[in-house]
Amino acid sequence: MPFARYVSFVLAIVIAGSCARTVAADDASTARPPNFVVIFADDLGYGDLSCYGHPTIATPHLDRMAAEGIRFTQFYSAASVCTPSRAALLTGRLPVRNGMSSDRRRVLFPNSGGGIPAEEVTLAEGLSEIGYAAGAFGKWHLGHLPQFLPTSNGFDTYFGIPYSNDMDRVSGDPKGRAAFWDPKVEYWNVPLIRDTEIVERPADQTTITRRYTEEATSFIRSHKSEPFFVYLAHSMPHVPLFRSPEFEGHSRRGLYGDVIEEIDWSVGQVLQTLREEGLAENTLVWFTSDNGPWLIFGDHGGSAGLLKDGKGCTWEGGMREPAIAWWPGTIPAGTVSMEIGSTMDIFTTCLTLAGGTVPDDRVIDGVDLTPVLKGTGSGARDHMFYYRGTELMAVRFGPWKAHFHTQGAYGADARKRVAHDPPLLFNLEHDPSEKQNVAGDHPDVIEKIRQIVARHRENLEVPPSQLEIPLN
Amino acid sequence: MPFARYVSFVLAIVIAGSCARTVAADDASTARPPNFVVIFADDLGYGDLSCYGHPTIATPHLDRMAAEGIRFTQFYSAASVCTPSRAALLTGRLPVRNGMSSDRRRVLFPNSGGGIPAEEVTLAEGLSEIGYAAGAFGKWHLGHLPQFLPTSNGFDTYFGIPYSNDMDRVSGDPKGRAAFWDPKVEYWNVPLIRDTEIVERPADQTTITRRYTEEATSFIRSHKSEPFFVYLAHSMPHVPLFRSPEFEGHSRRGLYGDVIEEIDWSVGQVLQTLREEGLAENTLVWFTSDNGPWLIFGDHGGSAGLLKDGKGCTWEGGMREPAIAWWPGTIPAGTVSMEIGSTMDIFTTCLTLAGGTVPDDRVIDGVDLTPVLKGTGSGARDHMFYYRGTELMAVRFGPWKAHFHTQGAYGADARKRVAHDPPLLFNLEHDPSEKQNVAGDHPDVIEKIRQIVARHRENLEVPPSQLEIPLN
Repeated sequence: MPFARYVSFVLAIVIAGSCARTVAADDASTARPPNFVVIFADDLGYGDLSCYGHPTIATPHLDRMAAEGIRFTQFYSAASVCTPSRAALLTGRLPVRNGMSSDRRRVLFPNSGGGIPAEEVTLAEGLSEIGYAAGAFGKWHLGHLPQFLPTSNGFDTYFGIPYSNDMDRVSGDPKGRAAFWDPKVEYWNVPLIRDTEIVERPADQTTITRRYTEEATSFIRSHKSEPFFVYLAHSMPHVPLFRSPEFEGHSRRGLYGDVIEEIDWSVGQVLQTLREEGLAENTLVWFTSDNGPWLIFGDHGGSAGLLKDGKGCTWEGGMREPAIAWWPGTIPAGTVSMEIGSTMDIFTTCLTLAGGTVPDDRVIDGVDLTPVLKGTGSGARDHMFYYRGTELMAVRFGPWKAHFHTQGAYGADARKRVAHDPPLLFNLEHDPSEKQNVAGDHPDVIEKIRQIVARHRENLEVPPSQLEIPLN
Repeated sequence: MPFARYVSFVLAIVIAGSCARTVAADDASTARPPNFVVIFADDLGYGDLSCYGHPTIATPHLDRMAAEGIRFTQFYSAASVCTPSRAALLTGRLPVRNGMSSDRRRVLFPNSGGGIPAEEVTLAEGLSEIGYAAGAFGKWHLGHLPQFLPTSNGFDTYFGIPYSNDMDRVSGDPKGRAAFWDPKVEYWNVPLIRDTEIVERPADQTTITRRYTEEATSFIRSHKSEPFFVYLAHSMPHVPLFRSPEFEGHSRRGLYGDVIEEIDWSVGQVLQTLREEGLAENTLVWFTSDNGPWLIFGDHGGSAGLLKDGKGCTWEGGMREPAIAWWPGTIPAGTVSMEIGSTMDIFTTCLTLAGGTVPDDRVIDGVDLTPVLKGTGSGARDHMFYYRGTELMAVRFGPWKAHFHTQGAYGADARKRVAHDPPLLFNLEHDPSEKQNVAGDHPDVIEKIRQIVARHRENLEVPPSQLEIPLN
């Protein structure tokens, strides 16, 4: 099967006339397109890694990954909460286009009946079409009915939990948020799924980061002779926080730090596996997260560093993320990039590098960041839309960010949406903490952003929301 | 003169019986004690360097210095404003002990008649006594009368401004803070001094960072055959902000970023000079700052990153600083240290490494960080006192920080000192942003900290303040 897939891939590129990519059979390994690994954390804050300035979380593997690769300082998820963010990563499209956003429910729940629509093309589908093996390990959260699971969306295999690790709360004591402060596995009834079958319930979350990692590295080893795509989506550091016994008391930062340091260990395992298998120079690895830190959870949540606010809102702390890409020999080592990037660009960049087809029958919001990765070009992305549900809250254009609406992340604040006309305007490069509204000084910038919005709305089709469909 | 000094140094250590340090004449260069360079910024925030997580300030030279050396994440200045902080750096003593703090005036002004007391032993005095050449370049701010200048305090030469670059304001338009937003050199009448003579007034601040750098590197080159100590105390990024024409528009962060990027260039020049002269492996270089960012100056001030508040107060943002030490071959490359350190420790560490005498006739607050630098030991410093004038506002002990008083940095807030009994208590390693007061959970920790305070007060002698002495 792997061999057949690889042969069909070589045939496909020969047929496509990509002569530069075709090679003599005995040199196939060097001509093969790059492998891709996307490591995705959950609720990781902009300021939570040592190489992004955290004082007491040690992340030597991620620091080394950055030192050997590229570290982005202005990289965005496409939403400030989980489901829409993940949908955007895997489709290269804003959640408002792919049915995975709603103004009533922000994410999918165990009682949801919807999921990622079949007509959406995931990165796994785009890559498997041209011969890639694809494995998903970790949190999915794009629908837990069989037709929505990874194996129905381009992945050959799946091992993970179908939605957030704080869902499926078992009734009983301790009540409410108290359960999170000293979490026990049995307080939640989250299922662990292999392919489409539940294999453990409740999932033993204490060892889950380690097991995802073992599954992912094992997948890499067993697919080293063909192009592969690994999607390793940790369910941590989303609360409730759990880590393996080896990481208890590992970090000065306490439990949250232990969890990040186990994820850092996991990254080290993946990169080491690639090195050991001789795949490092032919594999592009991404590390980023789905949204900012969940601040209402105090020291069980992370830090957005110098950015304002966190998960759930469209201030920078909600959507700007640590992002590191690694591809020894192709990405110049030690690059710090101030280019704007987005998780949606991972879709377009990987498909393009693989020689696959970026769908042209729909709007794709991802751009190809290859020139940024290689250091050969800049400005691939000049704007970013910040949605909350179907409401366009803010727009970034170059250094500028205009907030047309602001709204708190959680609690009472979340029920207050404030409209701004003219919008609040910040120069994010001068004022990353969004402190000084300079709208009065730059009417021209606001006018330009209004034009961008108008153009964006011209081709915007909003399908019915999958998030509002009940589990009948 | 240099040769004579070096001979006397060799004699001194022979007499002292330090046999391990004595060598045959033809091998003197390898046995000589390390050189020291202390690069001190002014009002630099914890979050202002790329290697501390700033998204749009590029600091490749400092990043490289950190990658080749040690980067501290819990390093403190000894005060939240300029004069006392600098006095502590150069004497290894809390400002409350050395006369350089006051409850009425926080720093020296052009109308001040006081300065660092003659009986204080500066690092330059301690080192020159054992044969070091010593040069001071940049801002002094420890007294501008001749008896207080660097050349009266152990330095062989001095080139710089005697107090802050925003003092000596010329009357006239623009009034007040408006002058800072588009600063011109002629709005201030700050003198530039060589040794004890004014050589330029107003100092041309646009080229001042470059000229300090040229003076410092020239001093290094001309003293390469003897042990030396260079104190390079930039007057930037204190407002008003100026940079050389080569750095206009250099940074995405605007004027403030230009200024930091010129300081970064300066660091690169110093390290490159040391490499070119073959001195890198025999020179310990420190980089840090006097206090946190001056937040009331908006985007002309810096960022404390994830830390609370900035210059002028005893929240972490006021006194925790970026700190990098570099000594190729001795400091293990790429170390990120979470050890507590202080600028006062630079005094004790350097004097100890040099084989000099740390004064034993007075209390010295600095500790020897050599084991931390070399990676051979930890816990050299387990506590830190946060003073404001002569008031002990807060105490750090291990991960814990107790605030006995809190007070705003500037403006109306600065007139409100609030006492806390029990003190506010934060676990800085779990909660670096000082958000969650956990005093109620840890009465034992508070009791321990009270004991530390009591012991501290037993040997505390507070001399009359130099900061309250008027000129003439």
